[in-house]
Amino acid sequence: MDNKQLAIEKHREWQGKIEVISRAPITNREELSIAYTPGVAEPCLLIAEDEERAYEFTRKGNLVAVITDGSAVLGLGDIGPSAGMPVMEGKCALFKAFADVDAFPLCVASKDVDTIVQTIAMISKSFGGINLEDIAAPRCFEVERKLKEICDIPVFHDDQHGTAIVVGAALLNAVKVTHKEMGKLRVVINGAGAAGVAIGKQLIAMGFGNIIMCDVHGMICENDEGLNSGQEEISHISNLNKEHGSLADALVDADIFIGVSRPHLVTKEMVASMNRGIVFAMANPVPEIMPEEAKDGGAAVVGSGRSDYPNQINNVLVFPGLFKGLLAVRARDITEPMKIAAAHAVANVIPEDELTPEYVIPSAFDKRVVLAVANAVAKEAEKEGLSRIPYQEIR
Amino acid sequence: MDNKQLAIEKHREWQGKIEVISRAPITNREELSIAYTPGVAEPCLLIAEDEERAYEFTRKGNLVAVITDGSAVLGLGDIGPSAGMPVMEGKCALFKAFADVDAFPLCVASKDVDTIVQTIAMISKSFGGINLEDIAAPRCFEVERKLKEICDIPVFHDDQHGTAIVVGAALLNAVKVTHKEMGKLRVVINGAGAAGVAIGKQLIAMGFGNIIMCDVHGMICENDEGLNSGQEEISHISNLNKEHGSLADALVDADIFIGVSRPHLVTKEMVASMNRGIVFAMANPVPEIMPEEAKDGGAAVVGSGRSDYPNQINNVLVFPGLFKGLLAVRARDITEPMKIAAAHAVANVIPEDELTPEYVIPSAFDKRVVLAVANAVAKEAEKEGLSRIPYQEIR
Repeated sequence: MDNKQLAIEKHREWQGKIEVISRAPITNREELSIAYTPGVAEPCLLIAEDEERAYEFTRKGNLVAVITDGSAVLGLGDIGPSAGMPVMEGKCALFKAFADVDAFPLCVASKDVDTIVQTIAMISKSFGGINLEDIAAPRCFEVERKLKEICDIPVFHDDQHGTAIVVGAALLNAVKVTHKEMGKLRVVINGAGAAGVAIGKQLIAMGFGNIIMCDVHGMICENDEGLNSGQEEISHISNLNKEHGSLADALVDADIFIGVSRPHLVTKEMVASMNRGIVFAMANPVPEIMPEEAKDGGAAVVGSGRSDYPNQINNVLVFPGLFKGLLAVRARDITEPMKIAAAHAVANVIPEDELTPEYVIPSAFDKRVVLAVANAVAKEAEKEGLSRIPYQEIR
Repeated sequence: MDNKQLAIEKHREWQGKIEVISRAPITNREELSIAYTPGVAEPCLLIAEDEERAYEFTRKGNLVAVITDGSAVLGLGDIGPSAGMPVMEGKCALFKAFADVDAFPLCVASKDVDTIVQTIAMISKSFGGINLEDIAAPRCFEVERKLKEICDIPVFHDDQHGTAIVVGAALLNAVKVTHKEMGKLRVVINGAGAAGVAIGKQLIAMGFGNIIMCDVHGMICENDEGLNSGQEEISHISNLNKEHGSLADALVDADIFIGVSRPHLVTKEMVASMNRGIVFAMANPVPEIMPEEAKDGGAAVVGSGRSDYPNQINNVLVFPGLFKGLLAVRARDITEPMKIAAAHAVANVIPEDELTPEYVIPSAFDKRVVLAVANAVAKEAEKEGLSRIPYQEIR
């Protein structure tokens, strides 16, 4: 049986990858009268007095909604809300497996920003956080921005920020291992969709240097026509020398290439034109340049989205611990400094003397990662005054 | 520690009464690649081709949404969506405990019919059924009616129909044990809210006889002023002799009293005026008349909502099995005949020779009930052409 067939068989066998179980025993009248009527009235009344007690008496304190509109599912595109559910369920299964965070998948059957926002806002009160997933750009920018305004819980679009954080983490270590100088780097990001723009903004905030965004037309420059809201925003703080030209032009003397685009867009020659390049080619499942080819071109560090090569850049290193930390302090929001703290936490899991060009990012199954991220994010949330309860070490 | 304190302590200890777990093992790269990328793409594509496959490859086939607006929670009234959550979580815990049906609680932060309807419709695709809960009348009628039009899955307001079914079941046996004649009975229902009206309609559909609805002003009669949509609808098919007068007037020579109103509204003398009365006094926690008093007044059968007296009329006898049956055949809707089938199934769990005035309804913990109801409902759904897959015995 090939892997595709195996995945189908397993999904048929599982009949869903999540399950909702009871945490309260209900085997006799006494237990029923505590978990349900009449006993349940007491916690209801306590929450009616003070809504914050929902964290104490309901699952809110450990519960994340994983929500999509099904418009940008994996590399499959707009397959609709029902067809997106196996991915959402999978994401929820990862939340539980990696961080013991409960996550529940929801699909919104609309492509209209305001309808999506209103639907999510209307059902948000019973959750401690919202993980937006696989929503197409530029809609995802607006959905996230509006929800952050409305909700008093963290709203996080993982395709944007989860990817940005894990790239940031891997880059921190890649820069260390290559002895490059932070702040002076030429960073080329190919792919100016949701993930690309978020990576760009995160790397600027982290102080890597001059970020140059590229799309199919080449380098993006301030005042270019046809930019969407996310691209327009980043155009003012990237490509500082207002360069024009192709991706190949951009890569000459570049220190870093980040690909969130399509297979085979980068050649060995383009890598050779870089300055001891750090190459993270993350198009999935086939990267912008195959790792061995990038090495042949002289790349100093190579990473990809693939599990069969070293340095797999994988979001699962971030979102479980990130939300675990946010939930631990009942955070009201997630901010840029929390994301940066998460990136440093992932990077620092690997002791400096263990870093090598083939090992700049921990394995997805490295059990140290989730607690490192959770503690870093929770601490930062408290520091910013966005925690509802004091930070205590998460173990 | 008294029971109230115990309920608070237990809820604090549980930190929520539901939990979302993973059904897929995710302990290594191979498992990750099946449950998540790249393997997960296959079931996504299969569902994109044919949405019905969501029943096969996601949790939809065993998943019910339990949804409230928090406007009529238990006897607590409009305590808001967050404060209603302990009840919703409790309901979900009961679904799992009694029928192994997964249920997930959601609260909608709006009191506007169209907003509630749109919100639920927007997130309904990943569920196999919708259980509306604790929504105030008359809003609940409109919400349910509109959702049933939009959704191709069963929508069921348990406060209305669950209560009606379990009352119908208990009455079937109470009529048997008192040798009363179906079709000729005078049935007085006190309380013309959502539950009262639903009970009235169900008992009319089941052919008990002349149903007389009462509210605080006494008997409801066709063309009375100030009736809400539900009351108006039932006024045309109840109170067949167009009587006017008080609850006491209504009860003279009545065979059956159903109370879904307030404590202590019925006296021993009123019961004595009935015709060997069947008295189901279900106001909670204090009934319209205490069971011993009703007995003193000459009632032939007495039931209540209380677990400390015989004949507890409890919704938990119905909703778990009902949805289990609906899900088993992937039903598109729930209809009046399915509800009647459920009532007969609950009643028939008790063999005729075991029926006594103190035992007209099974215990909430009688394990025969859930499968009896599930099979009856699934069979009826298939008979009506509302099943997506053939009925097979549910064991």
